[in-house]
Amino acid sequence: MKSTAAKREIPARGLAINKERLLADLNAISRIGLGDHGSVTRLVFSVQELRSRQLLIHLMTQAGLKVNVDRIGNIFGRLAGGSGKAAVLAGSHLDSVMHGGKFDGPVGVVGALEAVRTLKENKVALPCPVEVVCFVGEESSRFGFSTLGSSLLAGQVRMKDLANAVDARGTKLEDVLASMGIYRDNLPSLKRDPGSVKAYLELHIEQGPVLEAKKKKIGVVTAIAAPTRLRAVFTGQADHSGTTPMEMRRDALVAAAHLITYVEEIATRHSAVEKGRVVGTVGAMKIEPGVINAIPGKTELSIDIRSISAKAKKRVARLVEKRAREIAAKRNIAVEILPIRSEEPVPLDEKLLSLIQEICEGKKIAYEIMPSGAGHDAMQMAKITRAGMIFIPSKKGISHSPLEWTDPEDICLGAQILLETMVRAAYEES
Amino acid sequence: MKSTAAKREIPARGLAINKERLLADLNAISRIGLGDHGSVTRLVFSVQELRSRQLLIHLMTQAGLKVNVDRIGNIFGRLAGGSGKAAVLAGSHLDSVMHGGKFDGPVGVVGALEAVRTLKENKVALPCPVEVVCFVGEESSRFGFSTLGSSLLAGQVRMKDLANAVDARGTKLEDVLASMGIYRDNLPSLKRDPGSVKAYLELHIEQGPVLEAKKKKIGVVTAIAAPTRLRAVFTGQADHSGTTPMEMRRDALVAAAHLITYVEEIATRHSAVEKGRVVGTVGAMKIEPGVINAIPGKTELSIDIRSISAKAKKRVARLVEKRAREIAAKRNIAVEILPIRSEEPVPLDEKLLSLIQEICEGKKIAYEIMPSGAGHDAMQMAKITRAGMIFIPSKKGISHSPLEWTDPEDICLGAQILLETMVRAAYEES
Repeated sequence: MKSTAAKREIPARGLAINKERLLADLNAISRIGLGDHGSVTRLVFSVQELRSRQLLIHLMTQAGLKVNVDRIGNIFGRLAGGSGKAAVLAGSHLDSVMHGGKFDGPVGVVGALEAVRTLKENKVALPCPVEVVCFVGEESSRFGFSTLGSSLLAGQVRMKDLANAVDARGTKLEDVLASMGIYRDNLPSLKRDPGSVKAYLELHIEQGPVLEAKKKKIGVVTAIAAPTRLRAVFTGQADHSGTTPMEMRRDALVAAAHLITYVEEIATRHSAVEKGRVVGTVGAMKIEPGVINAIPGKTELSIDIRSISAKAKKRVARLVEKRAREIAAKRNIAVEILPIRSEEPVPLDEKLLSLIQEICEGKKIAYEIMPSGAGHDAMQMAKITRAGMIFIPSKKGISHSPLEWTDPEDICLGAQILLETMVRAAYEES
Repeated sequence: MKSTAAKREIPARGLAINKERLLADLNAISRIGLGDHGSVTRLVFSVQELRSRQLLIHLMTQAGLKVNVDRIGNIFGRLAGGSGKAAVLAGSHLDSVMHGGKFDGPVGVVGALEAVRTLKENKVALPCPVEVVCFVGEESSRFGFSTLGSSLLAGQVRMKDLANAVDARGTKLEDVLASMGIYRDNLPSLKRDPGSVKAYLELHIEQGPVLEAKKKKIGVVTAIAAPTRLRAVFTGQADHSGTTPMEMRRDALVAAAHLITYVEEIATRHSAVEKGRVVGTVGAMKIEPGVINAIPGKTELSIDIRSISAKAKKRVARLVEKRAREIAAKRNIAVEILPIRSEEPVPLDEKLLSLIQEICEGKKIAYEIMPSGAGHDAMQMAKITRAGMIFIPSKKGISHSPLEWTDPEDICLGAQILLETMVRAAYEES
């Protein structure tokens, strides 16, 4: 597929971001919320997160962008341009998980800021405005509510869900919002007019091991996998581990163990690209009574199944459920399967994907066309505009950890590709 | 095997316990420490447990027994008899687990008391003394230290282990003892002269489902299985559940699940009598990080293997360890196997077993010759004398629970068999 923009005279060639400035700003942001072992904690609406937003506004103002903060706290730094009303947006988020890393989020915000600063400094006249965006509350760590800011922008939030959100200390999201003068009635108006957005681009760390393992510098994201989450509860009979013969047991943990090995087996069988690249994980489990000398009477498992193919994901979830019932029936144990959440995978824009691919090829950069296993703001933005994502490698695939790491050179390369993609996207016909 | 005692004129025939008195006393004891849903909590050295001991002393005194309390708190109610110095002992314990039942322990103490009362009322002149025994702290619930009183009597306590015992609130066993005027230096002297004991008999609920399932009224215990306990720690790599492809994972929970299913499989293969009747259980597990969206990087399992055959138990433990290493090697995961505890199974006395069996046959009572999967005071007493155990059915095999239940008729039958066994044992040649 060849982009129409490629035919025009486009001023991206020769433009280069300022690496030192980019890395300095990224460092400045990571010092806010810095904790033990280099961890970063900027939970949404915490003092640390608010300070990081304030720093961003300062940096945007310094850069000469027109800053606009919406009612929930999403920040837009706009560089006017051309006659087009619809802007090219690029960004990510500044909030983090508890004891997270420096890169998940900020790389995309500071990368976009650096790209726009480069355009402004070089007096590049684009045919449309560009905006650096920082979304509020992408991480679900505090309120169990992910991509809060971008969901509101895309008009995807049910007010009922907001009302139910509570953090681990029992503080309600609504009360936090009210204390900041933010009221529910005003939130639906945050939905952005799709006519005002030409495209959304997001630079992000991969948070997985694929790029590093394949020695690729850039990931071009095809789609964002969405999780289907199930809870399986096996109920057998708690008995004394010494006095109950093997043939008289109804052990809920052994039943669960059979399901755990099956989740791995069935996901592996569907892990090839042509089968939808499914991943399946049992990450958490509760065992009752959970003591060394009692046969477990009850076990509860959390199952997380992801794919960019809705069909493949559905199929695997159905097979897991079927197997759970077979295991339970065979062992005279009860099983309950509770759906926690089931989301549709989000395909990203094919034209933007081709653009990023072309840019990488032009620069002879080793890239990988790949899905995103984790959720991102781009997944919400894709509902109101064309969205594209650029991944850069994560060392050992680690994220949400102080050990999260991406080489500075890779960050700078990602920001450079983002800049060039923004320019090309600005010239794209809508 | 025919008992020599069967040849003599033994005054057991016609002797009958007083069922109402037995059940009334058992009820009186279960009211001490009674909690919600009929649960009973008499943790060792708690006010409730001390009150139950005081009630027992009162009942023993009322019955005209000579009461003696040793330094740790074991209670002996003695009925003098004959010229023999060595006494037949019978008893069990009054302490309970947290939120336990009414029968685990008290049935054996009150059963023995009722048997001795019956002997005294009927003016039966036995050739030796008999003693009702109540041991302190059979349950490990509070200090992780089981059969405390009987271990001291058998000289099996290492003072170092006592020094390390601490309850969940951080209270040291030694401090509790000191507050009662019990000091470590005095404890070794509690070891009872084996010459002063002719035999030890214990009536106890089965705490398992076998008697009920086989419609048997009495269990004649061959041996007490002892646990071998292992901890297996698998260490893989914690990663994002969405971004890590199946083929790049080092999931510590899937490894653990394979071991859990193997423990069941191998114990089942060794569960036949001729293979040593092994049981194997994974009862507890820790998962890190233990969240729905992370691949488990570390899992820790507690494995409990029991058998009355030391050889069979060793073999199964070795196979479990071998399989754990195979699973880990295949998955590029580390595994550590830590022995927690390994005890030798304790065979009970064959002559006492035959005696109980003969008595059941004489009365046409359906009995089962069986091992004990749980530990008991008899296991310690077997180290200084001949020991025998009589089991009565547990409804659904449940114990250590408010749902623990044994039919009153079964309790009375058990006490009657205990009485007759005590008489026959008194006439046995040592």
